[in-house]
Amino acid sequence: MTLLLASSWGDMDPYFGKWREMLVRQPGGIEVRLYPDELGDVADITAALVWDPPPGLLAGLPNLKLIQSLGMGVDHIFRHDDLPAGVPVARLVDPDLVTRMSEYCVHSVLHYHRDADRYDRDQAAKRWNPVSYPAASTRRVGIMGVGAIGADTAGKLKQLGFDVAGWSRTPKDLPGVVGFHGGEGFAGFMQRSEFVVCLLPLTAETEGILDAGAFDLMPFGGGIINAARGGHVVDADLIAALDSGKLGFAKLDVFREEPLPKDHPFWSHPKIRITPHNAGITNPVTAAAEVAENYRRAMRGEPPSNIVDPARGY
Amino acid sequence: MTLLLASSWGDMDPYFGKWREMLVRQPGGIEVRLYPDELGDVADITAALVWDPPPGLLAGLPNLKLIQSLGMGVDHIFRHDDLPAGVPVARLVDPDLVTRMSEYCVHSVLHYHRDADRYDRDQAAKRWNPVSYPAASTRRVGIMGVGAIGADTAGKLKQLGFDVAGWSRTPKDLPGVVGFHGGEGFAGFMQRSEFVVCLLPLTAETEGILDAGAFDLMPFGGGIINAARGGHVVDADLIAALDSGKLGFAKLDVFREEPLPKDHPFWSHPKIRITPHNAGITNPVTAAAEVAENYRRAMRGEPPSNIVDPARGY
Repeated sequence: MTLLLASSWGDMDPYFGKWREMLVRQPGGIEVRLYPDELGDVADITAALVWDPPPGLLAGLPNLKLIQSLGMGVDHIFRHDDLPAGVPVARLVDPDLVTRMSEYCVHSVLHYHRDADRYDRDQAAKRWNPVSYPAASTRRVGIMGVGAIGADTAGKLKQLGFDVAGWSRTPKDLPGVVGFHGGEGFAGFMQRSEFVVCLLPLTAETEGILDAGAFDLMPFGGGIINAARGGHVVDADLIAALDSGKLGFAKLDVFREEPLPKDHPFWSHPKIRITPHNAGITNPVTAAAEVAENYRRAMRGEPPSNIVDPARGY
Repeated sequence: MTLLLASSWGDMDPYFGKWREMLVRQPGGIEVRLYPDELGDVADITAALVWDPPPGLLAGLPNLKLIQSLGMGVDHIFRHDDLPAGVPVARLVDPDLVTRMSEYCVHSVLHYHRDADRYDRDQAAKRWNPVSYPAASTRRVGIMGVGAIGADTAGKLKQLGFDVAGWSRTPKDLPGVVGFHGGEGFAGFMQRSEFVVCLLPLTAETEGILDAGAFDLMPFGGGIINAARGGHVVDADLIAALDSGKLGFAKLDVFREEPLPKDHPFWSHPKIRITPHNAGITNPVTAAAEVAENYRRAMRGEPPSNIVDPARGY
C-alpha cells in the first residue's frame, strides 16, 4: 500500500517533499513515492495524489484504488480521457484553500472597487485628487459557481457591504445573495454584474463561457476576475472587450496554457492584471489530514470524501 | 435659525452644494448658508457644520448653539484654541463613512498580505513565479483605536481569518480580538503587530505616537496603514524605518500638511503608497439625517449626539 505523488509539471520536488513530510506523520503513516524517480514496482501503488498527471500513468497502475486531486478542480485529471475504469476520483476541499481563494477574490474586488490603480498613477505624478467613489452597497458583484469557494467569497463580500449575486448550474440558496441558475438565468446574472468573479469547475458546459456574448451582456466598464480555470475565458474575446472599452479590467490567475507563454498578449495588456495561478496553493500542512483520511477509506474499500461524478466533471 | 457651512479649504463649493441640497430636504427644512459668500448677519447663525474652520470664525458667531464636524475626527476644530465657550462640538458618526473607512483598511491589509506589488513587477518582466504566502490566520494585524471604525475593521479582518489585536486608551472588549490598552499595553501591542492600522483620534496623547520608538518595537518587515491623521506619524522616523528595512511598507491616507506638498519625500518613496485623504469622504446623502437631527436637538436646547469631551479631544 503506497501513495504515488505525480505531476507532468516540472520541478515539483520541493513541493512534493513537503507533502511526503506531512503524509508520513499522519495516523498509521503513509508510504509515499515521488514520480518519476521513485516509481518502482507499479503493483505497489494503491493511491495517486496528482496534479495534471502524465498521460497514461494512472491507467498503468494495476492496483489503484484512489485518484486524489491535489486541488479543488479535477479538470487536470480528466483532460486526457485515459483514466482506469472504476477508480474513484476525489477533489480536495481544504478549508485553508477555500480561505485563500476567497481572499484572492475579495482582494481583487476591493482593488477595482477602490480604483486603486488611479492612486498609483496620481502618486507617480504627485497629483492630489481626492475623488469620491461609489458605496459598496451600490456595487453589484456576480459570483459564477457557488460551491465551497463561491459561497465563502459571497459571504465575505456581503459582510463588506457589496450587492452580491450568484450563478450556478442548479439552484443554490445563499443568505442575502441574489440567486440565478442554469442557461435561463445566465443573461440576467451577467446583465446585473459589474464585477464577475469566476469560480466555476471547468467542464464541457463551462468551457469558454466567458466569451464575447457574455461580455456583451455586462454593464459597460465592468470587469472579470478569473480564479477558476483558463479554459473558462475566450482569450481573444476578452482582449476585444477590453480594447473596445466594454470591459474596464480583467484580473486573471489562470490561463489556457500555464505558465502563460511569454508571447501571450495578456502579459502586456494595460487592463489585465496577472497572478501566476497561486490564488490558492494547497498547503500540505492543512490538507494532509484530508488526503490521509481518503487514503484510509480507499484502502478499506470505502468511497472517498468529495468524490467526483465523472459525467458531471466535478 | 441658520446653519453655516464653513471650511478654510479652497474649492469646497461643489461639495457644500450637495450638503445644502440634502439639508433643505430634511424634516422641517434647514436654512443653509455657505461661508464666506453667504455669511450675512452673523447673529442669524445658530449652528456651524465645519471642516477645518477658518481661525476665529466660530468665536465671532454670537448665537451659535452647535459646532458639528463634517467628519468623524474633530482635531481640525480644536486646532486653533479659539472656540466659543459653552458651545457643544459634535463628531459625525455615519455608518456609510464607517464602512468606507474599514473597507480602506481591509483592502490595504489584503494588498500587503497578498504581496500584490510583487505580481505587478513580475508581470512587467513577464515572469511566472507562483510563490506561496502565509495564511491569514498567521498574520497579526493590530488596530490602534477601536471606536466605531476600528471595531468594524477588526470584525471584518477577523471574518477574513486574520489574527487581530486592538489597542485603545481604556480597555475595550471585542469578540475574538486580543485587547491591549494604555501606556502599559503599548509595547506588547506593537511587538505582536506585523501590520499596524492607525484609526486613533488625534489628541495631545496620540500626536506623534507612530515614531522611531514605536517602529523599533514592531516585527522586522512589518508596515503601517494610517487612515487617521497625519499628526500621528513622525514623518522623518517613518522614512528612516522604511529605509533601514525595519518596516516594509506604509500606506498613508493622511498627512501633516494636506494636500501633501509636492516636495514632500513621501510622494516618491518606493515603500510608501499614498491616497489623498479620501479613505472615507462623508457622503451628504447618508449623513445629512444625523446632522439634521443634531441641529434640531441643539435648537431645542438638548445636547447633540456624539458630543465631544473637549478635555479628552474626541
